[in-house]
Amino acid sequence: MDTNELIKLRREFRQIAEVGWLEIQTTIKIIEYLKSLGYKVRYGKDIHSKNRLGVPPKEEYENYLKNIQLPNVDFDISEIKEGYTGCVAYMESKNPGPNIGMRVDIDALPLIESKDEDHLPTKLGFASKNEGFTHACGHDGHITIGLGVAKYIAENIDNLKGTYTLIFQPAEEGVRGASSMTEAGVVDHIDYLMGAHIGMNEKNGVLGVGTQNFLATAKYDVEFKGKMTHAAAAPELGKNALLGAASCALNLHTLPQFGKGMARLNVGVLNAGTGRNVVAANAKMLLEVRGDTSENAKLIEEKMKKVVEGSAMQYDLEYSMTKMGEAAAFNTKHPEFTDMIADEMKKRGFEIDLRPSLGASEDVSFMLKRVEENGGKCIHYLFGTQLSAPHHNEKFDYKEDVLDFGVKAFIETIDIFNKL
Amino acid sequence: MDTNELIKLRREFRQIAEVGWLEIQTTIKIIEYLKSLGYKVRYGKDIHSKNRLGVPPKEEYENYLKNIQLPNVDFDISEIKEGYTGCVAYMESKNPGPNIGMRVDIDALPLIESKDEDHLPTKLGFASKNEGFTHACGHDGHITIGLGVAKYIAENIDNLKGTYTLIFQPAEEGVRGASSMTEAGVVDHIDYLMGAHIGMNEKNGVLGVGTQNFLATAKYDVEFKGKMTHAAAAPELGKNALLGAASCALNLHTLPQFGKGMARLNVGVLNAGTGRNVVAANAKMLLEVRGDTSENAKLIEEKMKKVVEGSAMQYDLEYSMTKMGEAAAFNTKHPEFTDMIADEMKKRGFEIDLRPSLGASEDVSFMLKRVEENGGKCIHYLFGTQLSAPHHNEKFDYKEDVLDFGVKAFIETIDIFNKL
Amino acid sequence: MDTNELIKLRREFRQIAEVGWLEIQTTIKIIEYLKSLGYKVRYGKDIHSKNRLGVPPKEEYENYLKNIQLPNVDFDISEIKEGYTGCVAYMESKNPGPNIGMRVDIDALPLIESKDEDHLPTKLGFASKNEGFTHACGHDGHITIGLGVAKYIAENIDNLKGTYTLIFQPAEEGVRGASSMTEAGVVDHIDYLMGAHIGMNEKNGVLGVGTQNFLATAKYDVEFKGKMTHAAAAPELGKNALLGAASCALNLHTLPQFGKGMARLNVGVLNAGTGRNVVAANAKMLLEVRGDTSENAKLIEEKMKKVVEGSAMQYDLEYSMTKMGEAAAFNTKHPEFTDMIADEMKKRGFEIDLRPSLGASEDVSFMLKRVEENGGKCIHYLFGTQLSAPHHNEKFDYKEDVLDFGVKAFIETIDIFNKL
Amino acid sequence: MDTNELIKLRREFRQIAEVGWLEIQTTIKIIEYLKSLGYKVRYGKDIHSKNRLGVPPKEEYENYLKNIQLPNVDFDISEIKEGYTGCVAYMESKNPGPNIGMRVDIDALPLIESKDEDHLPTKLGFASKNEGFTHACGHDGHITIGLGVAKYIAENIDNLKGTYTLIFQPAEEGVRGASSMTEAGVVDHIDYLMGAHIGMNEKNGVLGVGTQNFLATAKYDVEFKGKMTHAAAAPELGKNALLGAASCALNLHTLPQFGKGMARLNVGVLNAGTGRNVVAANAKMLLEVRGDTSENAKLIEEKMKKVVEGSAMQYDLEYSMTKMGEAAAFNTKHPEFTDMIADEMKKRGFEIDLRPSLGASEDVSFMLKRVEENGGKCIHYLFGTQLSAPHHNEKFDYKEDVLDFGVKAFIETIDIFNKL
Repeated sequence: MDTNELIKLRREFRQIAEVGWLEIQTTIKIIEYLKSLGYKVRYGKDIHSKNRLGVPPKEEYENYLKNIQLPNVDFDISEIKEGYTGCVAYMESKNPGPNIGMRVDIDALPLIESKDEDHLPTKLGFASKNEGFTHACGHDGHITIGLGVAKYIAENIDNLKGTYTLIFQPAEEGVRGASSMTEAGVVDHIDYLMGAHIGMNEKNGVLGVGTQNFLATAKYDVEFKGKMTHAAAAPELGKNALLGAASCALNLHTLPQFGKGMARLNVGVLNAGTGRNVVAANAKMLLEVRGDTSENAKLIEEKMKKVVEGSAMQYDLEYSMTKMGEAAAFNTKHPEFTDMIADEMKKRGFEIDLRPSLGASEDVSFMLKRVEENGGKCIHYLFGTQLSAPHHNEKFDYKEDVLDFGVKAFIETIDIFNKL
Repeated sequence: MDTNELIKLRREFRQIAEVGWLEIQTTIKIIEYLKSLGYKVRYGKDIHSKNRLGVPPKEEYENYLKNIQLPNVDFDISEIKEGYTGCVAYMESKNPGPNIGMRVDIDALPLIESKDEDHLPTKLGFASKNEGFTHACGHDGHITIGLGVAKYIAENIDNLKGTYTLIFQPAEEGVRGASSMTEAGVVDHIDYLMGAHIGMNEKNGVLGVGTQNFLATAKYDVEFKGKMTHAAAAPELGKNALLGAASCALNLHTLPQFGKGMARLNVGVLNAGTGRNVVAANAKMLLEVRGDTSENAKLIEEKMKKVVEGSAMQYDLEYSMTKMGEAAAFNTKHPEFTDMIADEMKKRGFEIDLRPSLGASEDVSFMLKRVEENGGKCIHYLFGTQLSAPHHNEKFDYKEDVLDFGVKAFIETIDIFNKL
Repeated sequence: MDTNELIKLRREFRQIAEVGWLEIQTTIKIIEYLKSLGYKVRYGKDIHSKNRLGVPPKEEYENYLKNIQLPNVDFDISEIKEGYTGCVAYMESKNPGPNIGMRVDIDALPLIESKDEDHLPTKLGFASKNEGFTHACGHDGHITIGLGVAKYIAENIDNLKGTYTLIFQPAEEGVRGASSMTEAGVVDHIDYLMGAHIGMNEKNGVLGVGTQNFLATAKYDVEFKGKMTHAAAAPELGKNALLGAASCALNLHTLPQFGKGMARLNVGVLNAGTGRNVVAANAKMLLEVRGDTSENAKLIEEKMKKVVEGSAMQYDLEYSMTKMGEAAAFNTKHPEFTDMIADEMKKRGFEIDLRPSLGASEDVSFMLKRVEENGGKCIHYLFGTQLSAPHHNEKFDYKEDVLDFGVKAFIETIDIFNKL
Repeated sequence: MDTNELIKLRREFRQIAEVGWLEIQTTIKIIEYLKSLGYKVRYGKDIHSKNRLGVPPKEEYENYLKNIQLPNVDFDISEIKEGYTGCVAYMESKNPGPNIGMRVDIDALPLIESKDEDHLPTKLGFASKNEGFTHACGHDGHITIGLGVAKYIAENIDNLKGTYTLIFQPAEEGVRGASSMTEAGVVDHIDYLMGAHIGMNEKNGVLGVGTQNFLATAKYDVEFKGKMTHAAAAPELGKNALLGAASCALNLHTLPQFGKGMARLNVGVLNAGTGRNVVAANAKMLLEVRGDTSENAKLIEEKMKKVVEGSAMQYDLEYSMTKMGEAAAFNTKHPEFTDMIADEMKKRGFEIDLRPSLGASEDVSFMLKRVEENGGKCIHYLFGTQLSAPHHNEKFDYKEDVLDFGVKAFIETIDIFNKL
């Protein structure tokens, strides 16, 4: 795919940014493109387990569907509209060879993209048109690179060996989509799996090879329920869920000092109360914990639960904790495979950063782990590029030449796999 | 008006519960009724000042108007649809006499009404159909009593003296509507003004006469603005508005211990953050302060501002404070008038509670104060009734015989005014 | 007693300010004075119950005794040195009449008295010499007034009727001494009991008669126990009692907004931790709750306990709560007796403030209640004077003419009792 | 030195545990021992700069000196009694060679040593007799190892080359002593400096060689000053320093999540308030920040200052921040020297852990840095041993065979230096 097409595609996807399990327009557009290239495409319930985590409530779907206009397509999108988003594309060459897989993620974040003129997507008019949703983690680039690779494979299938499985995974944010697809078996046949993330502190133009330090994480929704009362006339009769949540948020954030390795905790959203002069009877928090090892993740999760329970007790509140997402810690079992890939890529002209540290969670870890458990091999890349703002910031953007770079890196890796 | 009609009316208004400045259906229904009785009715910009406090944003109107169905009426409702809600009805008798006024309030609260079967309005099917809005303070009763009195006046106008001004005030919750109408001059001609509230801890069947201890209050919206960042990869680059707000809410609630008199503070709503794995860059709190005197209200307001500023500084946040509503402290200058009314009402068979304490804010205080400043006289009642739950609770309800009681109390008071 | 002697005495007592149960020098000096006037004086275990609340630990006595120099006296002070402080003086006239009692309190506060030159006791050299203890509530004046009255009685015993019981009560701060003496029976024979407090917002030169609104209170020591660890090397292995206490203190202070009546809560002292680089394993808080009724006091006490328990749970801490003091709410059962006293005192030239509100706790309430329960009558006064700073402030002082005023008020009251 | 003498010495030092700048008995005992071996010993102001950080107030010295009994010695201890603790011992061989230095630290922690029978020092009777001070970081072992090495050098001086400088540094806890001695020039002549710490997560019996990751740190005392008032009668007139400090402590502990590298923050001590029923007018906190790089340490220090300032503003308090100690980050400039030492020590039978991570602060970093800046070389060891509880815990203890191990490691290192 030439650079212009990559940029055009990327900007289209950015404008229809959609959050996890709601990537309805995004999925349809990807499927259309893949079908036009000749791929066999599976999607809907066929590629998901029954236990998807963190699915938004039904009303959110209904409201969302009211606000968007879906294209007329010649395939059945009813399951996609229910949140079974993402797809898996298959193409088989006539030459025997390994089962090669690629995984990219496709969802956006629930942020309002910056409307400042110094934000390039806004200035050039390709910022999100889907108010409230923004590709602030670069998955618009991931989709585009994935489609660029797909086009290359389709155009060169006669010269390639083996089979090709291209996974467009939904709901990576919140680490929800990979476990569902993995449980549904979409990587079970794969011999070589490749994945990547753009940015993530990798230097511009550098290829991180064999990303390590995928953090274990667990995502929770916490709800407190107290008792409403008139805040002036009878405040003592209430049970203040807003204060319970405020105490909880503050005390939770004191937890993640760890001596061995590291842990993280974030209360990213807190909503409490219904009226200014009413003692708030309800509060909801969206939080996450992480650890560089599953032990640390588990320890901070236990500490977190005590703070939640204690905060509820302070204000005599009922409470609930619901797990909304989860990712495993991952470090490859085959460092020598990483070294080999690094050597080969270096020979092919890439500047290499060996084993960069992710220092974050990415649920591709579930797929990487499963492939290694089944006897396969994996490689995860970072595509270094210059960022305009940190990941998850409303002004996040990247240099578009990373699209070419990423497509080339995957193509060369396919070539390496073809020659093994 | 007979009891059955009062109950029927009240239940209709409860089902279309609407919050302050959005009482569009409610206002139209009131105007229709008043016009049918022969009143001259003023409404829209005609009865409001330019400086309405706490008006919701335009999108909220547009969204709300999408969700409701307005009746066809033969008067212009365009300004009502813009939030100039409420109305003032006029009727003149042929007999010379004083300008007599009555004020009731018409708005609901932003609560979801209980769906439990032990909640009578739910059981009998007259709970709010307007999801998210509930008459949890009894203003549905106030409207109904007001219309009952209106019907009595219309039917008896030939035997009455003077003129009648019936004020149906919007946006009492948040203490926003009275200052707007008062500034527009709607009470400037009134010689005798009467107002009332049902419930408020008054004993069932008892008439509170000369309500005192109206609390001064100020309502503020507070916003914090920080800096987003990925919560795991670079948390130290963020500025956490959620934690700033949590610290603010907790520390604010430590303020209202006052030795002389009393003060109140409530953070009723706190919303912060956009995503679970993003350091929250924004937070908004809806709060109020109160005092039994304007001195105490002012002192706690000053302390409040320091906590807000300090909380912002803790997390290096920008912040803003916007005043959204305001009510004055009020105690009548004419206690002897109160005593006279109490004596008369006792003679007419009412069980009296003299000078009950409100212990809350009610922006009728602006109108009462203005009438006294202009040389007029005022009386404020509590209509005692048994409540099913505290005011502002999702299960708030009252015994419907208070409707008759309230209409009768106002009618007898009109009779007293006619005989002065 | 002439004014100069009163002032001299008061300044002496101020310099030896001693806190509750440690009023050793103070008690000895009072006993000496009373004995010199001819009183029979009881003291030590004889006037206390076994269950004294809030007694300091033994080491505190031993340390304190090391730092002070006790006079040689001809009575046994061994029990006084163990903390059985205070005394009761008796004198009987030859004329039949009622048993008349007077109660004053004698303890100071654990504050460092201001060393500023604008603080009169410092400027004139009669500030506390007992570093760390200060008569910042005026009990130095109470002792002095009590001794002034004692001198009057002794000098006029032939012309007086009945018997006289003068109670010099220890440990009023922390509301510990009165319950102990009351349980030991020291007021059981009394027909008329009088008590008083100087200052307390009463206007200068005015006599508050029939003080009402004695707040119920409970005093607690709360301890948290966690787990120490190196704060940098292994913070996650600790259990942080300092943060548990900080969360507890903040959340406790959000409790006392009450719609009916009022409640108070104060965490006055918080000590936590042993080293800067150690996660704190222990914390101790001294707190109190109050209510204008025993119901409100009980409700805030229950809420307090939940916050303590919840804070411990947040950080996985052990905790204990120990009751250290207690006072009852009190309002007289005999308002007509108050009215009579007020009328009589007015005739004798006093400017009267009838039924002033205390709005604080004073454990004289235990004695007042007991006397009324036994069929006796009580009167409690406020002696209005101008204060240099609020009670319990390091610069608290008062105009010394209140000493004369107080003595005169008690003498006139004795005269009223003699004439009943 | 034989094992029994090492154990005997160590137990003696443990019983006289003394905190930083108060190691008076400890210093005297060390000097006596060194002098008996023939060393020339410098001490007092001679080995310290004028700007010692974190020196306790004068009264603390005076009180402490009252409680201990000093031995009669034939050298002048007056400066030691003023807090110029620690010493430097010198011995010169007759054979030309390098200037070899060893540094050990000698202070204890302000903890009460566990009195449980399962705590070996308590069971065997060698726990701290200096109530409130405990060798909970193993410096009793460091002193002992240092004296063991001193004895070896003294006994073998004829066979050794060069000169020997043995530094017994005070006040390592709080990172105060090293900067003072370094500024006084005590390491300026040294060619090879060796230092060590026992425990610190190093495996039992293993020698950590070339400790890295010394954390930069800064220690602060923070004071808040508010306004006292009676907590029930006039709480609104106070300015609550206790709540300001509680808010500060909680919010401070939310800071140390860092994406690149790491940061630490601990509020180890919080003392606030003077009386239960007084709004607290003062609060003091002892805190520290750390970072693995000076950038991170500086960033968290800046964030810390904002929280302190903001907390003061919340409650309208005055505040001060005083720097009490400081240590640099350190990683050697000569990794090849580390490798060489590791190889040599391996040959001599030690099980090696190369470049263990300290993950804490140790102000030996100042001396190591200075020696390298002057062109010298350094080696820092961890002496692995089994701990009974984490460092800084009241039950901290270690296996005493680490004493032999440490002496042997230093002796072998001296041998390596002699052969360079």
